[in-house]
Amino acid sequence: MAAHPVSPLAPKSYPDLPAVAGVRFATAEAGIKYKNRTDVLLMAFDEGTVAAGVLTRSKCSSAAVDWCRANLPGGLARGLVVNSGNANAFTGTKGKKSVEMTAEIAAKALGCSTSEIFLASTGVIGEPLDASKFAGVLDETATRMAETPWIEPAKAIMTTDTFPKLSGAVLEIDGVEVKINGIAKGSGMIAPDMATMLSFVVTDMPVAADVLQTLLARHNQTSFNAITVDSDTSTSDTLLAFATGKAALEPITSLDDPRAEIFGQALSDVLFELAIHVVRDGEGATKQVSVHVEGAVSDESAFRIAKAIADSPLVKTAIAGEDANWGRVVMAVGKAGEPADRDKLAIRFGDLVVARDGERAAGYDETATSAYMKGQELELTVSLGLGEGRATVYTCDLTHGYITINGDYRS
Amino acid sequence: MAAHPVSPLAPKSYPDLPAVAGVRFATAEAGIKYKNRTDVLLMAFDEGTVAAGVLTRSKCSSAAVDWCRANLPGGLARGLVVNSGNANAFTGTKGKKSVEMTAEIAAKALGCSTSEIFLASTGVIGEPLDASKFAGVLDETATRMAETPWIEPAKAIMTTDTFPKLSGAVLEIDGVEVKINGIAKGSGMIAPDMATMLSFVVTDMPVAADVLQTLLARHNQTSFNAITVDSDTSTSDTLLAFATGKAALEPITSLDDPRAEIFGQALSDVLFELAIHVVRDGEGATKQVSVHVEGAVSDESAFRIAKAIADSPLVKTAIAGEDANWGRVVMAVGKAGEPADRDKLAIRFGDLVVARDGERAAGYDETATSAYMKGQELELTVSLGLGEGRATVYTCDLTHGYITINGDYRS
Repeated sequence: MAAHPVSPLAPKSYPDLPAVAGVRFATAEAGIKYKNRTDVLLMAFDEGTVAAGVLTRSKCSSAAVDWCRANLPGGLARGLVVNSGNANAFTGTKGKKSVEMTAEIAAKALGCSTSEIFLASTGVIGEPLDASKFAGVLDETATRMAETPWIEPAKAIMTTDTFPKLSGAVLEIDGVEVKINGIAKGSGMIAPDMATMLSFVVTDMPVAADVLQTLLARHNQTSFNAITVDSDTSTSDTLLAFATGKAALEPITSLDDPRAEIFGQALSDVLFELAIHVVRDGEGATKQVSVHVEGAVSDESAFRIAKAIADSPLVKTAIAGEDANWGRVVMAVGKAGEPADRDKLAIRFGDLVVARDGERAAGYDETATSAYMKGQELELTVSLGLGEGRATVYTCDLTHGYITINGDYRS
Repeated sequence: MAAHPVSPLAPKSYPDLPAVAGVRFATAEAGIKYKNRTDVLLMAFDEGTVAAGVLTRSKCSSAAVDWCRANLPGGLARGLVVNSGNANAFTGTKGKKSVEMTAEIAAKALGCSTSEIFLASTGVIGEPLDASKFAGVLDETATRMAETPWIEPAKAIMTTDTFPKLSGAVLEIDGVEVKINGIAKGSGMIAPDMATMLSFVVTDMPVAADVLQTLLARHNQTSFNAITVDSDTSTSDTLLAFATGKAALEPITSLDDPRAEIFGQALSDVLFELAIHVVRDGEGATKQVSVHVEGAVSDESAFRIAKAIADSPLVKTAIAGEDANWGRVVMAVGKAGEPADRDKLAIRFGDLVVARDGERAAGYDETATSAYMKGQELELTVSLGLGEGRATVYTCDLTHGYITINGDYRS
């Protein structure tokens, strides 16, 4: 794979995430596909760690996704193995055997049951993954486990990503400091209505697995499920959360516990920041765009319209060209198939009203709008004037960079 | 608008379509947007001509589409006015008035009722269309009406098209020669499940309006509704058919008439050829791809899977890169949301089996496959192994050309 230039939307610096009690990790170079970079992450959790997860709804999910789906109901986790360079997807019975072998190697290295091992793989689809490569590597990796620095696992899981993605929150509950650390990868094959490519979140909060699962699924909806880079949904989308319970607090065992709301909000912030990082590292991205739809007949309808706009190649190329082409936004509203009344439509770029009552706004200011479109973070709002439904989808522009990256990915 | 290079998939020559009795036309330069090229087409039909049409299902349809939708139930046509350079879509009450004025000018020039005038506009969305520009132009154009050459109307309706699109059929029914001539335009904002951008078909076959409507809608399904360039659906999609009835035959008044089948097949051939021309002039296209899905649980399910593949930017960029990236095909099958069993999937490029039973095929030949991918016309077949459902969707690749064309279309 050719190296691609770092996204202009990359953060200027990366957060120095703190240790989370009960979580250790190390990375290694297994040489799966890339040279001279880490491509395997081994993470260990102390006994008593609970797990929750959201997985791709693709009908062609990867072997690792199938593995996680089978282990999640157990709710317990002791280890996580992630590799980049090969997705182990569409690899048939070979893929299933490869996953079983990897889990066995990891369970042995960490001294736990294979049902407590979670797996994720990302990279090219359709190539068999040789799990024997993990044999020596994971054993050796298990001897180097540390609590920091978190940028290392974020780097090991990258594929076409141009920057590592980290986010964390430290909150205080009943005077006790609680930490949430998250990492993510992904910059292509990203579409909402599923989870993201790969994201892992850990916390020391004592929280029951079912509560964690509910909070994760809820806040996934407005973070990873609300982003799209290219409308293509991965076979491998995996969002996993692990709670070690090491913070000195009584566990949250019910959503009615008022601390569930506080913890959930901090979790939501971490998920949202990671999701936005994914968009900002969208393949070829030069602009980040928030597409707001308001006044729809329902939130679901608003979401589908926002997604139609955010997925439209014509809208995305116009944004790349810094053209406030509201005609293409109208087109995307029209094709969404949701209730819309052309003559009630209003469209704003930032605070600038470009269209109102189904036609160009009387006070439309081409100069001001053109100046606004030169920004790196753009807000596009469509008001339908039909009801109270609203939703936001986050995306990036569509540039020559996307074509370049994806015209030569496999070779 | 910048001039873009002619599609490498353009035909080497254009058919010299014959005159169709009862149909005359002329084109003109109204200066709506373009300079030094025709941008208005006026077509006149003799009395007794019946009309049928398929229009966009966009919720934000253009003023001209609304006008045609109102006039189609009448079933009679005397005139057609098409302009390029401005779509008169999302132009509110101004757009409606503009359409009424255009119809009045045309009806006066041709000496008929406005309810017998059909209209279509294509070009930028959201800019008001000044219908007064048609006033002198249509009167003058009406004095120059001729029966040939058909390449002129095909040229006048082009926007980002890089070549004019024509197709015709001459068939013999009961010893009488019957003609069908068609033209089309479109190369972006093209997606199936609606009609195309703009296409007009004329015939001298005597056929009842309701029979023509049924045949048109039926064969639209496997032609214009089975193509996609960029998954974006136009506000202006319009397919109209006009039958002058001048051929010396008894009219077809029922679908049970055996001649309906013969005529319908010829009509289907013309629609299909025009639709393929649209794909081959897809913005930035360098390859034409037929995506076949077989073994689905139903034809509808097969169509949705074929469309998911044909709309996938990752599949389309891989094809542009001449990469037989079946992993991305699997991804697209997975995201379609239709019944699919990963472990029964087989994928072929041309006759080359690349995947079988949910993994890379044992006899996979990278060299032969790479050589195949260098062709300009590619066949991609997915076998699901679930049932008898099948469908084909026609598309093109996604290249830097698409980004270039659409990054600067409006400006």
